[in-house]
Amino acid sequence: MDREYRVAIMGATGAVGATMMLLLQERNFPISSLKLLSSHRSAGNVLEFGEEPIVVEELTHQSFEDIDLVLASAGGSVSKEFLPTAVEKGCLVIDNTSAFRMDPDVPLVIPEVNMQAALRHKGLIANPNCSTIQMLVALKPIYDKVGLKRIVVSTYQSVSGKGGSAVDELIGQTISALEGQEIKLDNFPHQMAFNVAFDWPFLDSGDNEEEIKMINETHKILDDDSIGVSATTVRVPVLYAHSESINIETEDKITVDQARQILSEAPGIVLNDDPSKQKYPLAVDAAGTDHVYVGRIREDKSVENGLNLWVVADNLRKGAALNTIQIAEMLNQSQV
Amino acid sequence: MDREYRVAIMGATGAVGATMMLLLQERNFPISSLKLLSSHRSAGNVLEFGEEPIVVEELTHQSFEDIDLVLASAGGSVSKEFLPTAVEKGCLVIDNTSAFRMDPDVPLVIPEVNMQAALRHKGLIANPNCSTIQMLVALKPIYDKVGLKRIVVSTYQSVSGKGGSAVDELIGQTISALEGQEIKLDNFPHQMAFNVAFDWPFLDSGDNEEEIKMINETHKILDDDSIGVSATTVRVPVLYAHSESINIETEDKITVDQARQILSEAPGIVLNDDPSKQKYPLAVDAAGTDHVYVGRIREDKSVENGLNLWVVADNLRKGAALNTIQIAEMLNQSQV
Repeated sequence: MDREYRVAIMGATGAVGATMMLLLQERNFPISSLKLLSSHRSAGNVLEFGEEPIVVEELTHQSFEDIDLVLASAGGSVSKEFLPTAVEKGCLVIDNTSAFRMDPDVPLVIPEVNMQAALRHKGLIANPNCSTIQMLVALKPIYDKVGLKRIVVSTYQSVSGKGGSAVDELIGQTISALEGQEIKLDNFPHQMAFNVAFDWPFLDSGDNEEEIKMINETHKILDDDSIGVSATTVRVPVLYAHSESINIETEDKITVDQARQILSEAPGIVLNDDPSKQKYPLAVDAAGTDHVYVGRIREDKSVENGLNLWVVADNLRKGAALNTIQIAEMLNQSQV
Repeated sequence: MDREYRVAIMGATGAVGATMMLLLQERNFPISSLKLLSSHRSAGNVLEFGEEPIVVEELTHQSFEDIDLVLASAGGSVSKEFLPTAVEKGCLVIDNTSAFRMDPDVPLVIPEVNMQAALRHKGLIANPNCSTIQMLVALKPIYDKVGLKRIVVSTYQSVSGKGGSAVDELIGQTISALEGQEIKLDNFPHQMAFNVAFDWPFLDSGDNEEEIKMINETHKILDDDSIGVSATTVRVPVLYAHSESINIETEDKITVDQARQILSEAPGIVLNDDPSKQKYPLAVDAAGTDHVYVGRIREDKSVENGLNLWVVADNLRKGAALNTIQIAEMLNQSQV
């Protein structure tokens, strides 16, 4: 990595932005300068990058003049408004929002799964939804070996996927619930403390957007619309890391031992699968780490070639900031 | 209900036992006397039944002399040891433990689903697992109409299913987590506060016992081994009420509207399905109530005749104590 990048982070004051800054340092990403961008409201705040204080600047269409790489995580509408300008100015843009994910001209990339798609970028690369990323990191090695006919996934998603204020809200609600005080709602339409609820908005089909994302993004990333996907995405009172109960039907038979073997050698995955010793992936263990953890691999005898898996990863890291930065790293290594 | 029963509760000091006492009062169950039985350790405690204080007695093989109806919830090994004696003494026994559920001579009964099986009892009737009960109350009307080919269920179970001390443990762990103190483990092998984990023990197949119960009990209750069942049972940091993400393939086509219509008229079910208004079943709403709540009924296009449902019920009530007492009530009405 000889080249150094002039990097801008859009949405620097958010939970994913903060994780991006942390990871750029942790991974010694080759930065020559770092610009932190936010809305008018948050501009002027001072954030620390390592020991260096950086004043957050207001995002404008002039923000990209002296920038090589834009990492965007400021919401879909902000991406839609500003990223075309960044691309026009010659920046490489990696967008963590859903704004351009289904655009046929925009590669949707998980480095372990479809890095070759990133090489065809036209300035803009989209980062998939957090729930999709960890699911496909776990399923791609199986898909390559025996094919995938159908996926039925139910998620157990942490509140941090809704931002830092959602984390504060769950903590505040939990204290209120324990003290018998009124539960205040801000980010969520329903109590999240000691409860289970759904993301919104909902579509006419009854699915919420997160569920549709898991279906459409799976088809796009694997470049295979033939895979049946049913998703139920659920928010649970966990602060960090998403867990997923995944049931699959493969095209050809794969045994539990074969699946374990393949996954134990696959990139980005840590196999943790010894339930007799109470060893399986846990959200509290995955939080703050970079891997996708897979366990509880079991044969599902209710269908031909059925398999169950339990997949856990840090939604702010592998599900968002880390995957974004990994794309940039891989492109840098490819000298694109 | 002319007849009055001399009732004994085994496991009176437990969470299910306490709920049984509450429900016997709430429902004006025809009781002429109530005996509360427990282990040696808890005997001598005084519990209130309405305004009446009752001293808890130690369970022995002589406990059943003057009893008509035994409601048992003191653990499987206790049921195995003592219930044959109770049956021998002529008691009608309804057992909430798993001890006799798969015994071919013992009916496994959900009143809304297979009450006719209870009529063939030989003194002992088993109450199904909490997760199975709420799932089958919701699915039976659909099964009757269009058949069931396969069920894939992932659960979001509250800690109260592991007893009152598990509720205290989640509360204690939550306080410790919020205060940055060490998390102490007692009922659970892993942290439950702000985390997601599994029940145990695990079998060689990798399934845990709860998952196998959902499969086997479904086959027995519906008297149909042809239904494929895949279960992943998960414990979440919720105090009361279980939620379930249920994906089904029916034999014949049923539309979402037809399913809603059928379920809205079915016994024991409250349909709560208007996600555009954020209306769907919630654990915190179901806690302390008697119904099985169904919502988020959606077509699953990943398979022929696919349907998704979200099913929530109070695990201590409909999942345990209420179902037990409903069996007794129905038998009383049948004058058996």
